[in-house]
Amino acid sequence: MAFSFRRLIERKRDGEILRDEEIRWIIGEYSRGALPDYQMSALLMAIFKEGLDQAELAVWTDAMLHSGDVLDFSHVAAPKIDKHSTGGVGDKVSIALGPMAAACGVAVPMMSGRGLGHTGGTVDKLESIPGFRTELDPSEFGVILERIGMVLAGQSETLVPADRRIYALRDATGTVPSIPLIASSIMSKKLAEGLDALVLDVKVGRGAFMKDLDRARLLAETMVGIGRSVGTPVVAVLTDMNQPLGRAVGNANEIVEAIEVLKGGGPPDLVEVCYRLTEEMLVLGGIEADRPAARRRLQEAISSGAAFEKLEQVVEAQDGDPRVLHDPSLLPRAGHEEVVTAPRDGYVARIDAFDIGTAALRLGGGRERKEDAIDPAVGLSVEVKVGDRVETGQPLAVVAWNNGGKLADSLPMITAAFEISDQLGTPLVYGELR
Amino acid sequence: MAFSFRRLIERKRDGEILRDEEIRWIIGEYSRGALPDYQMSALLMAIFKEGLDQAELAVWTDAMLHSGDVLDFSHVAAPKIDKHSTGGVGDKVSIALGPMAAACGVAVPMMSGRGLGHTGGTVDKLESIPGFRTELDPSEFGVILERIGMVLAGQSETLVPADRRIYALRDATGTVPSIPLIASSIMSKKLAEGLDALVLDVKVGRGAFMKDLDRARLLAETMVGIGRSVGTPVVAVLTDMNQPLGRAVGNANEIVEAIEVLKGGGPPDLVEVCYRLTEEMLVLGGIEADRPAARRRLQEAISSGAAFEKLEQVVEAQDGDPRVLHDPSLLPRAGHEEVVTAPRDGYVARIDAFDIGTAALRLGGGRERKEDAIDPAVGLSVEVKVGDRVETGQPLAVVAWNNGGKLADSLPMITAAFEISDQLGTPLVYGELR
Repeated sequence: MAFSFRRLIERKRDGEILRDEEIRWIIGEYSRGALPDYQMSALLMAIFKEGLDQAELAVWTDAMLHSGDVLDFSHVAAPKIDKHSTGGVGDKVSIALGPMAAACGVAVPMMSGRGLGHTGGTVDKLESIPGFRTELDPSEFGVILERIGMVLAGQSETLVPADRRIYALRDATGTVPSIPLIASSIMSKKLAEGLDALVLDVKVGRGAFMKDLDRARLLAETMVGIGRSVGTPVVAVLTDMNQPLGRAVGNANEIVEAIEVLKGGGPPDLVEVCYRLTEEMLVLGGIEADRPAARRRLQEAISSGAAFEKLEQVVEAQDGDPRVLHDPSLLPRAGHEEVVTAPRDGYVARIDAFDIGTAALRLGGGRERKEDAIDPAVGLSVEVKVGDRVETGQPLAVVAWNNGGKLADSLPMITAAFEISDQLGTPLVYGELR
Repeated sequence: MAFSFRRLIERKRDGEILRDEEIRWIIGEYSRGALPDYQMSALLMAIFKEGLDQAELAVWTDAMLHSGDVLDFSHVAAPKIDKHSTGGVGDKVSIALGPMAAACGVAVPMMSGRGLGHTGGTVDKLESIPGFRTELDPSEFGVILERIGMVLAGQSETLVPADRRIYALRDATGTVPSIPLIASSIMSKKLAEGLDALVLDVKVGRGAFMKDLDRARLLAETMVGIGRSVGTPVVAVLTDMNQPLGRAVGNANEIVEAIEVLKGGGPPDLVEVCYRLTEEMLVLGGIEADRPAARRRLQEAISSGAAFEKLEQVVEAQDGDPRVLHDPSLLPRAGHEEVVTAPRDGYVARIDAFDIGTAALRLGGGRERKEDAIDPAVGLSVEVKVGDRVETGQPLAVVAWNNGGKLADSLPMITAAFEISDQLGTPLVYGELR
C-alpha cells in the first residue's frame, strides 16, 4: 500500500494521529531509501512539536525494531534482561551490574554505546582493557551469552539501521530532544536484543540529557509505556546525575572503580545504583520475589567472588587480558597528575557533572570529533561529594593527564565545576516507575 | 559570518526570534546550494509552527528578494504600481486592470503566474491570444513598460530564485499554508519588480487558498506589514472567492470577458473588482486624491476607448494578434457546448468556485501535471450568480468542450457546484487594509 508522504506530514503537522499501516510504511520506505531526507526531517519536526501518542509510539518503535535484524536467544534458558542508561558522567554501572546479574542467573545480552558529547560510553571504557574486543558477530555473541550468561559488546550495525539514519537526521535538524523520538530510539535498539525484560536507568540533572525531573519522568513513563504496548516488562529507575557517579571519570579509571564494586568496595553512591538496578533485574527475571531478597543474593555473589569471576570470564571470552582485573596498574596510566584544591572552607554545594564530563572529554577521554582517538589513561578522580565539609587546600579532584595543552583546556572547567558554600546534597535515587 | 544551521533551527523550533544577519545567512547560503534541503525543510516546519514576527519577516522577504535580480525602472517617470491576486476562479482582473491603470498614467510592470491547482493563471489566459509572447527579457520588458506604460509578462527566472527552491520544498513537506511563508513568497516576487507601490487582491472563500476571512485578513495584514517595513506602500483588498468572479472560467473566454470590461460592459461583480483595485492604484500613485475621483477618471478612460487602446498596444508590442481584440471569434473556440440546467426552482445558494475551477482544469483548461498542455478553447460560462432566482430547466452553466472523456470527468463536479435553495448571497468585497 502506498501513501502520500506529504499528506502524512500534513496530518502530523496538524496534530492528527497516524495509523499503524501509515507509520509502518514511513519507516519501511525510509529505511530502504525510498523517501527523501527533506520530507523525513519535516515529519520529525512535526513530531517534535505534536508528539506521538502511545499507540503511534508502539508502532513506530516496532517498525524501527524490524528495520533490521532482531536477535533471538530462545536457546538460552535464563531470563534475558539488559540494563540501559540514558547517559551520564562517571557511569560505569554496566561493567559491575552485568557480572552481578549474570552471577545470580540472569542472561545479560548487553550492547553498549560509545561516548556521546560530555557523557562517557561503556564500550570506550571496556576498550581500555588490553585486547578486549567489543565488536562481536551475532553467532559469537550468542555463544558467549549462553556459555557465560553475559556479553559486553558494542551496538551491532545490523540492528535497527533505521535508527542510525533517523538519528543522524535528527542531529542535523534540531529534533534530538523529542521525548517520543528518544524513547523509540532507545527502545527499538534494546528490544532488538530479544529481551524478556529491561531495566532503564533514566539519569536526571546537569550531567544528564534530561536536565529536569519532569522531563525525565515523562521519558521514563514513555519508555515503560512502549514496553507495556509490546509486551516486554520494563522498569525505569530515575537516578541523580547532577554530580558525577562515583569518583572516577574517564576510561581506564572507571574500569578500576567497577572492579572495586565487584570486590565489595567502591564509592557508596555507585554501589547503591549498581545494587538498585541489578535488584530490579533479578525481580523481573523471577530469580527473587522482591528487592530485599535480591539484594541479599547480590551481596552473596559479591562476597563469594562469583560476580568478579563473571567479569573475568567475559574479559577472557572477548580476548581481553584478565590480569588487569587483578592488577589494575597494568591498565593504561597517565604520565602526570594535577590536584585541584578547595579555595575556601565550607560545604560542597555543587559538583557540576556536565562541566566534569566536558573536562574529561577535553583531557582526551572523549571525542570532540567522531574520528578522534581516545586516550584511555586520562581522567579525573573526584575526591568529594555534594554535602561534604571541606577545608581550604583540601583536594577536590585529582586530574590524570598526558597533554599539557589539553590539561590547560580542561582545568578552568574543573575548577568552575565545584561550588563551596553551605548547601546540602541532592537525592541519589528519585524513585522508580513500572 | 558563519552560523550553525542546526542551532538556528533549534532556536526557531523553540519560538525564539532569529536576528537579521542569521536570516540573511540562511537565505543566502541556501540559495547558493550550501545548506541541505533536509535542514531547510525542518526550519520551514518550525516556521510553520512558530511563525516569523514582523521584523523577521521583513528581513526574510528582503533576503529572498535579493537572492536574484531586482528590476530597476527608475528611468520610467510614472509611478510603478502592480496588482497581485492570491488566486481565484474566473479571475481575469489583471487583463482589464492593467490597461485601465496604464491609460490613467500608472506604469504597470506586471509579472503574472500560470494556473496553480484549481485556479487559473493570467499567463495561460494571455497565451490564448495567437502569437502573444509572455516571456520577455529584462531589457525588452523595460522598453515596453516605458513606451506603453504596461507590460503583461510571465515571471522571470532570474527574479527571486530562492523562492522557487523554497516553494518546491514547501510543496513536498506540508509547509505551503504558512501565512509568513506565503506572504514573503508573494512580497519578495512583487518587490523584485522595483515597484513604488502595490495593490493586493486577497481572495477569500471556497475557491481561494484562504478559505476563511480571519486567515485571509491575517495574510493581508502580514503583507501590508512587510510593505511598511521595507518602505513600499501596500493596499490589500479582501474580495470574495466563494463563487467564480464574472461568468467566464477558462482561458480564451476569460480574455473575451476582460475585453468586455474595457469596452464598458462585463458582469457587474467583475467590473466592481476591476474598478475597486484600479482606484487603489491611482490613489497610491498620486494620480487622484481619492477613490471616487479615481473611479471617474477610470470611467473616462473606458468610455474614451483609451483603456482598450492600451490593451491593443501591449498585445501588439508582445507580438499578439490585435485583431482578436476586435473580433473575439478569432480566439480559439471549442467544438461543442453542453448546457447544465437548474434541477428545481429556487434561489442559487452556492456556486462552489473550487468545484468550478477544478472542473475547468479537468476539461483541459488547466494542468493536472506540470508538463500538461492547456486547451485554451475549453471552459465554462456561469450564467447565474448566488442570490439569483432560477426556474427548473434554466441554464446554470454552458460548458465549452473538445474532449468527451474530459467532459464526462468534469460534468458531475459542475452539477454538484450549484446549490439551489432559499439562501441569499455573500458580499463581494469584504473591506481593505492599508
